[in-house]
Amino acid sequence: MKKVVVIGVGLIGGAFAKGIRRLYPKVEIYGLDTRKEHLEKAVQLGLINEKATEGAMVNADMVIVAVPVNALVRELPQILDSVGEHCVVFDAGSTKSLICQTLENHPRRRNFLACHPIAGTEFSGPTAAFDGLYEGKTNIICEIEKTAFPLQEKALAFFQKLGMRIRYMNPVAHDRHIAYVSHLSHISSFMLGKTVIQKEKNERDIFDMAGSGFESTVRLAKSSPDMWAPIFEQNKENVIETLEEYIQNLEAFKSMMEANDFKGIHQEMNNTNRIQQILKGIPLTKTLD
Amino acid sequence: MKKVVVIGVGLIGGAFAKGIRRLYPKVEIYGLDTRKEHLEKAVQLGLINEKATEGAMVNADMVIVAVPVNALVRELPQILDSVGEHCVVFDAGSTKSLICQTLENHPRRRNFLACHPIAGTEFSGPTAAFDGLYEGKTNIICEIEKTAFPLQEKALAFFQKLGMRIRYMNPVAHDRHIAYVSHLSHISSFMLGKTVIQKEKNERDIFDMAGSGFESTVRLAKSSPDMWAPIFEQNKENVIETLEEYIQNLEAFKSMMEANDFKGIHQEMNNTNRIQQILKGIPLTKTLD
Repeated sequence: MKKVVVIGVGLIGGAFAKGIRRLYPKVEIYGLDTRKEHLEKAVQLGLINEKATEGAMVNADMVIVAVPVNALVRELPQILDSVGEHCVVFDAGSTKSLICQTLENHPRRRNFLACHPIAGTEFSGPTAAFDGLYEGKTNIICEIEKTAFPLQEKALAFFQKLGMRIRYMNPVAHDRHIAYVSHLSHISSFMLGKTVIQKEKNERDIFDMAGSGFESTVRLAKSSPDMWAPIFEQNKENVIETLEEYIQNLEAFKSMMEANDFKGIHQEMNNTNRIQQILKGIPLTKTLD
Repeated sequence: MKKVVVIGVGLIGGAFAKGIRRLYPKVEIYGLDTRKEHLEKAVQLGLINEKATEGAMVNADMVIVAVPVNALVRELPQILDSVGEHCVVFDAGSTKSLICQTLENHPRRRNFLACHPIAGTEFSGPTAAFDGLYEGKTNIICEIEKTAFPLQEKALAFFQKLGMRIRYMNPVAHDRHIAYVSHLSHISSFMLGKTVIQKEKNERDIFDMAGSGFESTVRLAKSSPDMWAPIFEQNKENVIETLEEYIQNLEAFKSMMEANDFKGIHQEMNNTNRIQQILKGIPLTKTLD
């Protein structure tokens, strides 16, 4: 590889750029970002060499597109129009169905690899980017068979050097499952934060009474609305389904309390303690720690 | 201080015992626990010298009662009956109203200090206890004026040596506020864990797709049902109120999604991002990290 273009030089794109700097020291990295200040910061931080010029795409060996999922759907077709035949373009979007549908019949579909690296923090922007973000993390790849074989190889070699675990999935299954283990968590966290802020007019009380448990539970409520609103929009049906099931479980818990069925509540919690064993399987939880 | 009795040698009682070992090396620590294996483990780990004998209370300078809140209400009256007049007895319960009511007219009320150290992890038992758990944490003390002055001094000197921040509150306000910043978080976390486990029959999918964000949000679902069911029972009215407000906010979020009001959802998340500034005020979040 000689030239890489990173579109969206925030946490995700910036962390890929840092990985390339380390693993392919000779590669020139060019960046694009709708936010001028992010682009300047990315140059300052050495994430990228400089702003990508008009012609940069044509000669790029790899284009990493790390922008919100609504921008992905809008921009990926043009990006694919402008790359050469040996260039692999991959995204990092938290939804996959609409993106894969949008590109299904694109003449350069074989240059695209649909990816979702399960990695991130509640922070965003180029200053939040760090090398090692992807180490031990899972990268879910959809419709691998639609990507040209040598371009699959090029991208997979990079992911493996980053230390990522690769899992293959179809986009519909991806969006259904991710709604439960990621999208719903963000809503529960945002609404928990909202409920407490609404109540605690005097924030001193939160300062003094909230502990690390509360902080852990509302941590995702720090996440970027620009990133998350489009995710909820694209995965609307699945997210609404998870929300309905979550609300039902909360209502059931409330009914048990109203009925003074604390034995049943004990049982509920006991059954859910299994999550501890399940969580042991989640790689590198340290990212948010 | 010469003799301390720790009743309940789990995470909370054990961490106090470790603090006493460090700060008052000459003090003898005796322990009691309904779980024989916890008591034995506590001796093995050096948390306590040995099991407290019948007569231990009479000569104790301090009795630390770190048992579930239902056991506190049942056992604190007898504990107070059996201590000498220079002994301070304090609890660490996550509810305060019923405990303070129960002891209101106890002849030894002035020997009791109602405490709630905002500290803990999702783990429990003597092996989970570590020194430093209380450093920088808030200890909420209720009805300080009902405790004999020299006994207030004795307990406060210990808390200050542990590095705790002291806040005074009335038991009713404590229980109302703590429902929001602690009790509700646990329910949201348990029910999130339940919702995902229900859906993901095949746990492999959770392993592979869940990231650190999910882990952070469901972390409290590892908590002990023996500890939490009685807390929900004692704080029933407040907890039900918080649950209703939380469910209303989730329903409102769902309605905005159904109405495709993603601009409104963006605004909601944007408003709640303030939680980041609020969380900056929470001391020592590292406990759960």
